[in-house]
Amino acid sequence: MAHRTSQDIRYLHRFEVMRRFYADAENRTRQELAAATGLSFATVANLTAELIDAGVLVESGRQDSGGGRPRTLLAVNAERGALIGVDVAETSVRTELFDLALRELHAEERPLPPDDVEPGDVVARIEESIAVALEVTGTPRQRVLGVGVSVPGLVEREGGVSTYSPYWSWREVPMRSLLAERIGMPLHLDNPLKASTLAEMWFGEGRGVDDLVVVTLRAGVGAGFAIGGALYRGATNSAGEWGHTCLELDGRACRCGSRGCVEAYVGTRGILETLRTVAPADPLLQASDDTEALRGLALRAAQEDPVATEVITRTGRYLGAALGSLVNVFNPQVMVLGNQVVQDLGAPLLSATRAALADHALAQPLRAVDLRCSALSHNAVARGAAASALEGFLGNREMFGPVSRTRGARGRTK
Amino acid sequence: MAHRTSQDIRYLHRFEVMRRFYADAENRTRQELAAATGLSFATVANLTAELIDAGVLVESGRQDSGGGRPRTLLAVNAERGALIGVDVAETSVRTELFDLALRELHAEERPLPPDDVEPGDVVARIEESIAVALEVTGTPRQRVLGVGVSVPGLVEREGGVSTYSPYWSWREVPMRSLLAERIGMPLHLDNPLKASTLAEMWFGEGRGVDDLVVVTLRAGVGAGFAIGGALYRGATNSAGEWGHTCLELDGRACRCGSRGCVEAYVGTRGILETLRTVAPADPLLQASDDTEALRGLALRAAQEDPVATEVITRTGRYLGAALGSLVNVFNPQVMVLGNQVVQDLGAPLLSATRAALADHALAQPLRAVDLRCSALSHNAVARGAAASALEGFLGNREMFGPVSRTRGARGRTK
Repeated sequence: MAHRTSQDIRYLHRFEVMRRFYADAENRTRQELAAATGLSFATVANLTAELIDAGVLVESGRQDSGGGRPRTLLAVNAERGALIGVDVAETSVRTELFDLALRELHAEERPLPPDDVEPGDVVARIEESIAVALEVTGTPRQRVLGVGVSVPGLVEREGGVSTYSPYWSWREVPMRSLLAERIGMPLHLDNPLKASTLAEMWFGEGRGVDDLVVVTLRAGVGAGFAIGGALYRGATNSAGEWGHTCLELDGRACRCGSRGCVEAYVGTRGILETLRTVAPADPLLQASDDTEALRGLALRAAQEDPVATEVITRTGRYLGAALGSLVNVFNPQVMVLGNQVVQDLGAPLLSATRAALADHALAQPLRAVDLRCSALSHNAVARGAAASALEGFLGNREMFGPVSRTRGARGRTK
Repeated sequence: MAHRTSQDIRYLHRFEVMRRFYADAENRTRQELAAATGLSFATVANLTAELIDAGVLVESGRQDSGGGRPRTLLAVNAERGALIGVDVAETSVRTELFDLALRELHAEERPLPPDDVEPGDVVARIEESIAVALEVTGTPRQRVLGVGVSVPGLVEREGGVSTYSPYWSWREVPMRSLLAERIGMPLHLDNPLKASTLAEMWFGEGRGVDDLVVVTLRAGVGAGFAIGGALYRGATNSAGEWGHTCLELDGRACRCGSRGCVEAYVGTRGILETLRTVAPADPLLQASDDTEALRGLALRAAQEDPVATEVITRTGRYLGAALGSLVNVFNPQVMVLGNQVVQDLGAPLLSATRAALADHALAQPLRAVDLRCSALSHNAVARGAAASALEGFLGNREMFGPVSRTRGARGRTK
């Protein structure tokens, strides 16, 4: 059995320290890091020494400590290498290249063919866009510390196979080997739920939260869970398929093949299905894409259009009930709502959702949870995929191998 | 933030080692423990030395090692002290007293008044039954290492308040302080979901499982989660209220105040509500208690009575859909079904449930999950409450403080 080891704890502590640098401050003293993470000063000294050895952190100056010895400031060594994040979505592939300080150096989006997307199309676009990103930024291939790719569906991390995509009915596509042979850089495959959750854990509302749920609402719907600073993956990396939990027994058909799933009510297509129920001849049902239709709904709701208002109210009722189930099962400290649906439908959806949530969540866990909207942009998935590559790099045993004898003698965890 | 520390990991490893002794073998060599837990021999040697120091383990003999030096056998020191587990259920209080080898030395059940149970009634029965258990077994009070009490509802562990019970409409009852002043022994308060989960982790199907869900089906319904050998509690110890997740939007009224909750369909009263829907004048609806009614249903289903068969089929459909949501969200390695409903309705319920589960769970996590029925008896909750007390005892810093210099110098985790 794969129980947690001291080594796992060491990774988690390394992640916690590093996350502090991606928060509000660019420079940190070891004292501040200890205070912010709750780790002992000795542990922080040990972790930062390793990170300096690996070229990840650098000393960036001194800070007056009010009479005592000046304290060393540390910062991320942005030049240490590059990270790439790729968000494969329903209609496009978005690729972003970052330095190690996670500053975006390049971003681009390439449309996918509107129908019948084949794995080869996706792989080709990823390969092209990475080549462009490297060329535009003048980044040699060997300076890339990792490439994170988010692919919709259930993504088996170890086997590396995208076994199910709600968009294109792929089954058992060997995405990892298809990509690995074309890309030739350290590859980290995940799905949008996990990428969004990592984005919140590293750059967003999830920093320093122990029991975190990140809800993704776009064409696909799901939830990512993080416990004590670690993403919860489940037995085969498919945890979080909240979009395919039952909201209404024998309800609407869902593209997963079942009925009554949450996604069939609160995913973009589910919302348009609600519109079809309320007003079958509504012109928004002819919109060229789902995003345009959602924005049209939001606009009309702002003008108090009764159809749009009814659709958003119903969607909030569905969403509130489904979130109530998450609150009751998981008892989170923070629940972050993110992505397209929340951004496009905004305040009216949230107010309807909060009302329904209060009807469905038990009083005690409802009081305990802090419901937040993601402050990250629409495209947090690419950034989260880059965070996945960053975790892969920071968890690399060769890079952060056994520390030197000198430090070891000061008493490190074995 | 409360991140995992080396100390937490040490507790988890101590639990893992101790769980091996409650499995099939009573005597274990350190070599067997290392092989069974996956921990290094050095770690096991260190952990067992601590446990011997604390009087929890004793050397129980030698085992021939086939030519080499004979290996020392270790066993739990049953005489080290007693553990008490109390299961407060809807109609009765069950109390069990164990030695440290978790052999049951005494068990008794006291009925509660049929209606309007007051916190004072429960506390009085717990106090009486513990006094009897101590007297009958000749156990002095100071030899009790801990008392675990399972109380239905949401039980805040730290604050120690039972904030909500589905049975008696208690609100914010200060159960911990009520009990503490009467009992005067180390007290560990939890609810049946968590006690059942601990019972499976220590004595049942959950041993050595990383991603575990234990489903409790009796009057109250819920699920316990264990990740990497640790019970998942959530932000305020209320994780697992799967009984109050939405199965049918605007469906049956639930005693939590909401509608369409899983418990309203698959809890004992939910099943009788289904019977009422199928056959409003059925004589089983006049049964003196729910257990009698369930057993009557099972008996009639065995005789191919169409009403009973229909009720069990519908219940399986509800249960399968609700379990499918758990499989999709949590992606467990093992899911254990336990308690009264499963035991009373048995094979016909399970077969209907499995069919519905296949309709609702995604193919990949469904393939990954091993669905098992609990092999523990009806009364696993009292035993699980005792396991909660055992974990409390084994996590006691004073008992297992810093180890001696001699062993420290051999390189222990700081």
